[in-house]
Amino acid sequence: MAKLSGFPEYTPRERIVEQAVLDHLRTTFELHGFGSVETRAVEPVEVLLRKGEIDKEVYAVRRLADESGDAELALHFDLTVPFARYVVENANELDFPFRRHQIQKVWRGERPQQGRFREFTQADIDVVGRDVLPAHADVEVAQVMTEALGGLMDLVGSPTAHATLQVANRKVLEGFYLGLGLADPTAVMQVVDKLDKVSPEKIRVMLAEIGVDDDSATKVLGLAEIVTPDTSFVQRVEALGVEHPMLAEGLAELAHVVGSIVAPERVTVTADLRIARGLDYYTGTVFETRLSGYEQLGSICSGGRYERLAADNRSTYPGVGISLGVSRLLAALLADGLTTSRSVPSAVLVAVSDEADRRAADDVARALRSRGIPTEVAPAAAKFGKQIRHAERRGIPFVWFGPDERSTAHTVKDIRSGDQVEIDPTTWTPPVEDLRPQVVAPSPTPRTEEKNS
Amino acid sequence: MAKLSGFPEYTPRERIVEQAVLDHLRTTFELHGFGSVETRAVEPVEVLLRKGEIDKEVYAVRRLADESGDAELALHFDLTVPFARYVVENANELDFPFRRHQIQKVWRGERPQQGRFREFTQADIDVVGRDVLPAHADVEVAQVMTEALGGLMDLVGSPTAHATLQVANRKVLEGFYLGLGLADPTAVMQVVDKLDKVSPEKIRVMLAEIGVDDDSATKVLGLAEIVTPDTSFVQRVEALGVEHPMLAEGLAELAHVVGSIVAPERVTVTADLRIARGLDYYTGTVFETRLSGYEQLGSICSGGRYERLAADNRSTYPGVGISLGVSRLLAALLADGLTTSRSVPSAVLVAVSDEADRRAADDVARALRSRGIPTEVAPAAAKFGKQIRHAERRGIPFVWFGPDERSTAHTVKDIRSGDQVEIDPTTWTPPVEDLRPQVVAPSPTPRTEEKNS
Repeated sequence: MAKLSGFPEYTPRERIVEQAVLDHLRTTFELHGFGSVETRAVEPVEVLLRKGEIDKEVYAVRRLADESGDAELALHFDLTVPFARYVVENANELDFPFRRHQIQKVWRGERPQQGRFREFTQADIDVVGRDVLPAHADVEVAQVMTEALGGLMDLVGSPTAHATLQVANRKVLEGFYLGLGLADPTAVMQVVDKLDKVSPEKIRVMLAEIGVDDDSATKVLGLAEIVTPDTSFVQRVEALGVEHPMLAEGLAELAHVVGSIVAPERVTVTADLRIARGLDYYTGTVFETRLSGYEQLGSICSGGRYERLAADNRSTYPGVGISLGVSRLLAALLADGLTTSRSVPSAVLVAVSDEADRRAADDVARALRSRGIPTEVAPAAAKFGKQIRHAERRGIPFVWFGPDERSTAHTVKDIRSGDQVEIDPTTWTPPVEDLRPQVVAPSPTPRTEEKNS
Repeated sequence: MAKLSGFPEYTPRERIVEQAVLDHLRTTFELHGFGSVETRAVEPVEVLLRKGEIDKEVYAVRRLADESGDAELALHFDLTVPFARYVVENANELDFPFRRHQIQKVWRGERPQQGRFREFTQADIDVVGRDVLPAHADVEVAQVMTEALGGLMDLVGSPTAHATLQVANRKVLEGFYLGLGLADPTAVMQVVDKLDKVSPEKIRVMLAEIGVDDDSATKVLGLAEIVTPDTSFVQRVEALGVEHPMLAEGLAELAHVVGSIVAPERVTVTADLRIARGLDYYTGTVFETRLSGYEQLGSICSGGRYERLAADNRSTYPGVGISLGVSRLLAALLADGLTTSRSVPSAVLVAVSDEADRRAADDVARALRSRGIPTEVAPAAAKFGKQIRHAERRGIPFVWFGPDERSTAHTVKDIRSGDQVEIDPTTWTPPVEDLRPQVVAPSPTPRTEEKNS
């Protein structure tokens, strides 16, 4: 059967890498007090289409036996729209500011292309206030995500792995354009947003087409060139000689965010005034994230502040959030060879040399598990060499041999070193780093350790 | 907006209970060496319909912009059909016997009734062989699931919480009916399967309708009465005086399973010859599970052995598995008041008495997190009492106060006892049981501790 394009499925070994990534994200988020929310996979079609021109990407869902009439439900295509609905629906039971993470699959009915999935996992964090949300919420989501990214860089293992969180603020861009006297700042922003793909000369032409004079275009491009790893961007913007109250407000907000984040190793935070996210409805802070060596992925982690994430007839709910595209990142890392030390959770294989000894082997396994050691028992009685090969194929580091006709001792063999030692069955435990499968960075030379014995 | 019937969503507090259940299941499965597999949410419609009369329950999925023509994809309605497809598709990369757990949502387009969901979570474990699968695999999946159930009973907390894993074997029933000379053992099994809902007298009438004479009906009902917590069922079956090679084979297999499982506290394993699972395609061992106090749920955890879970042109893949209906069980437990000690992951709230102190509070929080303590910082500067109430509403057990105009010391207040003590900020850590939210059993009297301060 052909695999379905756009619907990735992982081998057991790849799934262990995915679990390590997802566990790391959840642990980081919860360490910061962000609790988990899951929303149902479907939303009413009209909720999903409220944002506009995306109906081609939506997967409608209806009972197969009941295909007449318009579809009423569809699979969610992101986690922001369902979360906004959840906040309004549960507003009476939530404590604001409400902080949550949400790690779930989403679906988009796109024509699959390279790196584009129809089913994929996103990891979102958001802070939502009722009527008001203080500025430090923007710092907080950025801080949490930089720590999550730092841990991911450690998992990836390569010494050059590095993430850059790029922060900008819509008010800086819009205020600057208004200060220049430009009539349609949103149109300007959508042109500037193309700087990633289009040369500055071409941008200048596009700006002229929407009525931006040449001097103003020079300043618009000058603003977009400003990238600083600290708050010195403020002076550089001011040196361009444009003034507007909204610009001043945006600069103060952005300086607050960039100056407050304490980035972990392997993560840089920059103020980057190219970042416009012109197609989204952000009203202040905006975020994108680039990964060195994976520039082709574009931004792997984006977000920003919505002044009005949701509203009901009593309140508005301002929010700020960031969303990490887990599947896209993971696919790139797996394609580059990120793998695990073994394909199963088991740290120990208990050998069975004779089916009559299976109960004794089960008892050994039970005792190991009671000490938190993932253990499996050989599925068939077999000779020494076959048991070793069973463990090797799966990457299980230790094989346990109970008493047999040759010896009354319990022994454990480390199949990587070949060392086999007599141990006390009531106390032996593997080194802590062998308890769980380890994520293994791609290596330039073929790995051979699993072939030794 | 009205909630969608059949699509449950949890409050943050309920979600913590669900996470505790799912984490416990995963930990137990992986301790036994069962790795995780996830399959895509959709399957080709013809794969899902292969089993027969279920097309009314299937949710078709198609691009909203592309509604013409027959639906090609649909949401999976269980995890067995996708797993069988996954095994065949990945057979070259899997090591057999292949052991996996799979914890995912499934969808059924049913008319929602009480306790019936359209979206719900199942937790499956299976062992699959290539061409052969030894009998101890049946023991293994039962052993793993009894341990998972034992841990769930501990989570539920009630002293009367108790699960019973009921084991039978199709060969016992079918062999017994064949030994009686009955022509259509499957039809007999499907009648016996109704013993849960229908009186023995009525079963006798139904058996007569399919041609079972009265003496045979007495024996059929006699067999179904046999329930033993050990292998003594063998003698009781033999005492009915029926003989058949398939019966003898089934009795040996069932005795092996029932005699080998080492049940944890709060779980009983019984041989129960009422269990037929007449509507499924099992070929040997079958399992059901009842929870005391929750008899209305029926079997919360069922499965068995398929001689042919899947096949390709080279091999057949016999399997044995059990599936736990997580959502149905969880909904019942939540409705009975199962809850958690707090609604957020945070163990500590760091108070902020003045916005000027926020950075110092962030530094305290960072240090606590580096020691693995989930911590949040107060969202707004406020007086003592307001900070305490913020923690109380969420159930956060500890509030941290840094130096202020009154004192140079760091202090921590336990909001449950009201004790506030001076601590060393570089080493203090909460008791280990306060690090994570605890699942709290329903209590007959209203809980009041969160109201004290």
